[in-house]
Amino acid sequence: MATSLGELAVRFGIELVGDPAAEVSRVATLANADSESISFFANRAYREQLRKTNAAAVLVHPDDAKDCPVNALLADDPYLAYARIADVLCPFPDLVPGIHESAVIASSAKVADTAEVSANAVVGDDCLIGEQVYVGAGAVVGPRCTIGDNSRINANATLVQDVHMGERCIVHPGAVIGADGFGNAMSDVGWVKVPQLGGVRIGNDVEIGSNTTIDRGAIDDTVIGDGVRLDNLIQIAHNVEIGDHTAMAAFTGISGSTIIGKRCMFAGRAGVVGHINICDDVVVGGATMISKDIKEPGFYTASFPAEKAKDWRRMVARFRSIDELFRRVRKLEKSAGNDDE
Amino acid sequence: MATSLGELAVRFGIELVGDPAAEVSRVATLANADSESISFFANRAYREQLRKTNAAAVLVHPDDAKDCPVNALLADDPYLAYARIADVLCPFPDLVPGIHESAVIASSAKVADTAEVSANAVVGDDCLIGEQVYVGAGAVVGPRCTIGDNSRINANATLVQDVHMGERCIVHPGAVIGADGFGNAMSDVGWVKVPQLGGVRIGNDVEIGSNTTIDRGAIDDTVIGDGVRLDNLIQIAHNVEIGDHTAMAAFTGISGSTIIGKRCMFAGRAGVVGHINICDDVVVGGATMISKDIKEPGFYTASFPAEKAKDWRRMVARFRSIDELFRRVRKLEKSAGNDDE
Amino acid sequence: MATSLGELAVRFGIELVGDPAAEVSRVATLANADSESISFFANRAYREQLRKTNAAAVLVHPDDAKDCPVNALLADDPYLAYARIADVLCPFPDLVPGIHESAVIASSAKVADTAEVSANAVVGDDCLIGEQVYVGAGAVVGPRCTIGDNSRINANATLVQDVHMGERCIVHPGAVIGADGFGNAMSDVGWVKVPQLGGVRIGNDVEIGSNTTIDRGAIDDTVIGDGVRLDNLIQIAHNVEIGDHTAMAAFTGISGSTIIGKRCMFAGRAGVVGHINICDDVVVGGATMISKDIKEPGFYTASFPAEKAKDWRRMVARFRSIDELFRRVRKLEKSAGNDDE
Repeated sequence: MATSLGELAVRFGIELVGDPAAEVSRVATLANADSESISFFANRAYREQLRKTNAAAVLVHPDDAKDCPVNALLADDPYLAYARIADVLCPFPDLVPGIHESAVIASSAKVADTAEVSANAVVGDDCLIGEQVYVGAGAVVGPRCTIGDNSRINANATLVQDVHMGERCIVHPGAVIGADGFGNAMSDVGWVKVPQLGGVRIGNDVEIGSNTTIDRGAIDDTVIGDGVRLDNLIQIAHNVEIGDHTAMAAFTGISGSTIIGKRCMFAGRAGVVGHINICDDVVVGGATMISKDIKEPGFYTASFPAEKAKDWRRMVARFRSIDELFRRVRKLEKSAGNDDE
Repeated sequence: MATSLGELAVRFGIELVGDPAAEVSRVATLANADSESISFFANRAYREQLRKTNAAAVLVHPDDAKDCPVNALLADDPYLAYARIADVLCPFPDLVPGIHESAVIASSAKVADTAEVSANAVVGDDCLIGEQVYVGAGAVVGPRCTIGDNSRINANATLVQDVHMGERCIVHPGAVIGADGFGNAMSDVGWVKVPQLGGVRIGNDVEIGSNTTIDRGAIDDTVIGDGVRLDNLIQIAHNVEIGDHTAMAAFTGISGSTIIGKRCMFAGRAGVVGHINICDDVVVGGATMISKDIKEPGFYTASFPAEKAKDWRRMVARFRSIDELFRRVRKLEKSAGNDDE
Repeated sequence: MATSLGELAVRFGIELVGDPAAEVSRVATLANADSESISFFANRAYREQLRKTNAAAVLVHPDDAKDCPVNALLADDPYLAYARIADVLCPFPDLVPGIHESAVIASSAKVADTAEVSANAVVGDDCLIGEQVYVGAGAVVGPRCTIGDNSRINANATLVQDVHMGERCIVHPGAVIGADGFGNAMSDVGWVKVPQLGGVRIGNDVEIGSNTTIDRGAIDDTVIGDGVRLDNLIQIAHNVEIGDHTAMAAFTGISGSTIIGKRCMFAGRAGVVGHINICDDVVVGGATMISKDIKEPGFYTASFPAEKAKDWRRMVARFRSIDELFRRVRKLEKSAGNDDE
């Protein structure tokens, strides 16, 4: 659907520097844009692409408008403005309401007339599937789950049981929500399984990535707040609670019963041990393990930059003698009379 | 089902300090327990909750009984006692024997009459599905698999082929067992796939977490011992052997042909390189990579605690000069005449 | 199918030291081989097994032939030769062309007559499924995907949409290709989803491991080159490009828009941040995070060997004082008059 830049400027409250009658009908990257495309500039690494773009228009920060050779739409956060405009230009396909003949729906489940349940999906006992919900091919929604209006459970995802999800959520393929947590007690004949009896409560506007796993609570529920964003291949253990609008990148793992605050951000492969508290507004660097409470907002990290292997091995060998080095320095200090250091 | 504390004390051989006629009908956390709930105290971080609990009874270690304001059941391992009592109070739902009409069972497969095969599950050629086995919705059991009595293959799990599993095992959703291992030989035209021909042998009482992957052996089988516990999102490569009662937390990865002993414990994101041996009773810390044989039981680790980013960056910068520091100290020692250090 | 060593030697251009009339009908490990088996020796850790093997023949490097007690087939790369011979002795089972009656195929999809579509698989609108393609049980191929001849989409794998895959590819169970990337812009009401609109282009001869995830591009496509090998549980984010014949072991993660060269190798749990470039022929060690461009081929790493926990804790405590140590050494140098160091 073609839209004029003037319309976009008015609708999104953005200043236009250029021709309000120019039309755009699709989005494109700076490098691949053509005269019907709108693009955005949000990462300075791509400045050369901005200077050479053939887009009809580019969303840019006012400070970067000087480098934009075409119509410029000035936004304080061009990426956010792009997200909103792309949603208008490239709307999500409409649902095809109804239940595919190959889907299996328990007789006690209630599925809204406006919902779409795809081929070979399975919906279990006592489920409530809301208005305009999408259940993808091969997805399994186990007993006693509720799915709020306009949420999407994509292909081959599994909601095991007792998952209560708000509105406008998205669960990507292969995600598993509500499986047993890892609860084991050692006995003299080996591990005894600790029964896992809780559910999972998920707020509104939550997105859960492909093959991510969120375990049911051991007794009480595991809780995911509103607006939480989880990337692919994340592990959320039993009884974790994640505050509103917290985002986690791939391979993040949160161990059991840990409570994470609001608006936290975890880079890829971050981890948090069990039974601790992370306050609001904490940012955790990539490949960093948090092993005790964090009570102060800020950026925490513990990862080393990669080195050429030869250099790294020398550093590691030295590191393994670091205790000895401290003792040698102490001895030098004593010799030098720096005894009170 | 309500049970008196007196009955529980007798049945599980636990000392009761309190009213034997008091009844409990469910389990609860210390914080959320009410007068019909039994709870447990196993982590000192929750001592305040113990002191304030409204539970009917609490499983506690004798040393902690003084802090229990309600009926106390004294157990040396309250968590273990809880696991056993919860299993009685909250038993697993009974199976509904039979094969759902939408499931597809190969004509050469044998499925016990007492087994339950759910909607849209698939069972392949020459499979043997034991007594009271559960095969969940959308699960796929490929050719030549055997599943021992009372085991559960949950929704959307995949046993690719030649998986031989004992009794009372649990496979959680999305787990993939028996897919090809990562075997590639480089040639002058690129990688050549090394045929993967083995199977997977799994003992009794094994639990395998959601989206965990266990590859088939390249030639001989991959082997998982009795009582092994694998959390979610674990990778077990081809021809790994894991000893009885070893437990691994999420994101643990074991590379090909490595042999892991009995009763080992791996914290989250632990890793082991290929073709090595880890002896019995080894504990590996979180985010720790083991790169050579371990012949002595004990606790091994290699992860750094997170720091505020500013502090961390200074430490890393110093670390990158550590070789130079050693040389500077050596020079000081020479000047000071500590030459024989 | 039994084959004589003489035939194998001629067919694969390998020198035989032994009896050309001896026959082999299967492959085996050195330890478990019998008089009908061919084995290989490619890892010196198994030299004792070579010396004791009961195989009919062993593929060995000429330098190791002296330790081979049976017929020897001399190959510069015994593992590669083994891969090719195993492929002949243990060929992949033939397809059973046709569409299982429980599979659901969109009317607009085109499936070659020689393809096999298994039970409860789903193929969406406008798909093109090539000659001798295998689609496993429960696999979902979403709209507008093309799958080249002789490729295999195994059980419960998901191609979400707009995935274009070449010939002879293998996708293992639980893999998810073409789901939305992790694109979020922060607004004053929380995260706004950035529409994900691109597809995934995959070359020929690509193998993708179990539960691995490859996201669709945000605007342009995510691109996987010819001959790429991805192990299990790998994350490839939106708009990543991976060069031909690059191989990645389990848990490797590549963040968005990063470009990886040809013939690179990533050990397990390697990671690369977003928006950077890695040149051809880079090898990355296990558990190593790459955070800036690499322009020079070579081996890069940043992981520490595990230590006994007591030793490790002492090293870490010292490391946390490393800045102070540098200052103490500087002071000693000043005292010693080494001021120009």
